[in-house]
Amino acid sequence: MNFADRLLVSVEKSGTPCMIGLDPRLHDVPIALRENSPRDTIISVNSAIIEALHNRVPAVKLQIAFYEQHGSGGIAALEESIRLAKARKLIVVIDAKRSDIASTAEAYANAFLGSGQGGFDVDAITVSPFLGRDSLMPFVRACNEHQKGIFVLVKTSNPGSSDLQDLSLDTGERVYERLAGFVSELGSSLIGRMGYSSVGAVVGATFAQEAHLLRRLMPHSLFLVPGYGAQGGSARDAANCFDANRRGAIVNATRAITAGHDPALSRSEFITAVRVRIDTMIAEMTTALAGL
Amino acid sequence: MNFADRLLVSVEKSGTPCMIGLDPRLHDVPIALRENSPRDTIISVNSAIIEALHNRVPAVKLQIAFYEQHGSGGIAALEESIRLAKARKLIVVIDAKRSDIASTAEAYANAFLGSGQGGFDVDAITVSPFLGRDSLMPFVRACNEHQKGIFVLVKTSNPGSSDLQDLSLDTGERVYERLAGFVSELGSSLIGRMGYSSVGAVVGATFAQEAHLLRRLMPHSLFLVPGYGAQGGSARDAANCFDANRRGAIVNATRAITAGHDPALSRSEFITAVRVRIDTMIAEMTTALAGL
Repeated sequence: MNFADRLLVSVEKSGTPCMIGLDPRLHDVPIALRENSPRDTIISVNSAIIEALHNRVPAVKLQIAFYEQHGSGGIAALEESIRLAKARKLIVVIDAKRSDIASTAEAYANAFLGSGQGGFDVDAITVSPFLGRDSLMPFVRACNEHQKGIFVLVKTSNPGSSDLQDLSLDTGERVYERLAGFVSELGSSLIGRMGYSSVGAVVGATFAQEAHLLRRLMPHSLFLVPGYGAQGGSARDAANCFDANRRGAIVNATRAITAGHDPALSRSEFITAVRVRIDTMIAEMTTALAGL
Repeated sequence: MNFADRLLVSVEKSGTPCMIGLDPRLHDVPIALRENSPRDTIISVNSAIIEALHNRVPAVKLQIAFYEQHGSGGIAALEESIRLAKARKLIVVIDAKRSDIASTAEAYANAFLGSGQGGFDVDAITVSPFLGRDSLMPFVRACNEHQKGIFVLVKTSNPGSSDLQDLSLDTGERVYERLAGFVSELGSSLIGRMGYSSVGAVVGATFAQEAHLLRRLMPHSLFLVPGYGAQGGSARDAANCFDANRRGAIVNATRAITAGHDPALSRSEFITAVRVRIDTMIAEMTTALAGL
């Protein structure tokens, strides 16, 4: 089954389009979960979070920067975290925002969208369109060959996204509108049976109006929606990224779910506390989507 | 000493602005250098290339995709390759084109531009401006704190760079011109004693006219110039990235130097063969710069 169908089926089964980020911030890990090395602490906390979420949400997003901080030990923890998530049948997205010239993009596609031999065995990766079409084609080919997915940055959730993505072109379009056309076209050959393409887009929850417009411009693109929670986006804002059937997007939260817990919590108390926050997010999204 | 000064002093000492890429393509490694694991083969071939180049050029560029392909073993080989290069007093640039929202960019800055504890102990990293100013500030702060450098993508060497970077804005500028102003301004507080900032720019050798214009628009930005050799850029093209004093840029070659050697070469024959190609590149750049 192609990636878009797999993701949408998982969302249906879970009953929610919520996705949780696994971005280990070590200073923020409860003392009971800390181990002797960054590698082991990352595995310890991720294993607890995965235990908390796996029957509740369909997918996780691992932000690779938080692993690269710890060098090859951090990357080994990333590999183990991916294994833990896949063992729980979660869809695994790596948030890496990779992009490079075609010959290098092939190496990145091997690393993240290959058959898992040598590289990382994940379902999808975020990529940047900054280098243009030829830089994205190796990823698109890998999606086709290995039933994987990509999410192309179109309008990111941060305030500075306006600096480049909102610039007005001489045609009257904004850069993000131009990118929307580009992503739509790039994904046109990978549309699954449920009407969505394995070439998706990253569209921040923090810009509701733009999200609404982009949903119209990219009717076949799955949206990965960051910015909910700590970044200020509400469930109502994120709902703009869905279609009239309340499908077509997946909403990520990270810090809102996993950060700032009492450092004195035991492992099982931490799992419970994470679950409470996940259930709040799920309820908020359900309400927001019901209002569409 | 700030990064820009350090790089320029190294270039003066070496007498050439040439930089060599260490992008392990394992199918292309001479049989005599192959080991039992991707990790050990990468270290073996990089150690030979570093032996070939270390008295000839001031700097190396490691394209991280070629290491990520091999998972945590590849990243361990990256760490060891960085150590080998630094032991030979080479300036080490990681070509990673990272970019993310500010809180994640901080993690990337820790990974690559920190004090080397936990992350990667390199001198500079390439970054993408796609997410705007706030996404670059953590890198700029790390440059200031740790005497490191960044090279911001402005006009990349690949054909598809025109798709986004060449778009015309409603002001009449191209996107890459707008980015040039942005990078200049971003680097204005980090200008060293030799007149260049530790916030540099990536400008491909393959677009000579644009390079000429960008040199004028960014008088204080060091250029990292890819595209020489396998991508079709000539020494003459790359020379457009230098100032009137033949300074201010560093020109990278990778495949032109390290790829396509006879697989039957012994280690010492491979080192000699790599040296011959480096010497050709150095001679070509010297001639091209003399013609300025």
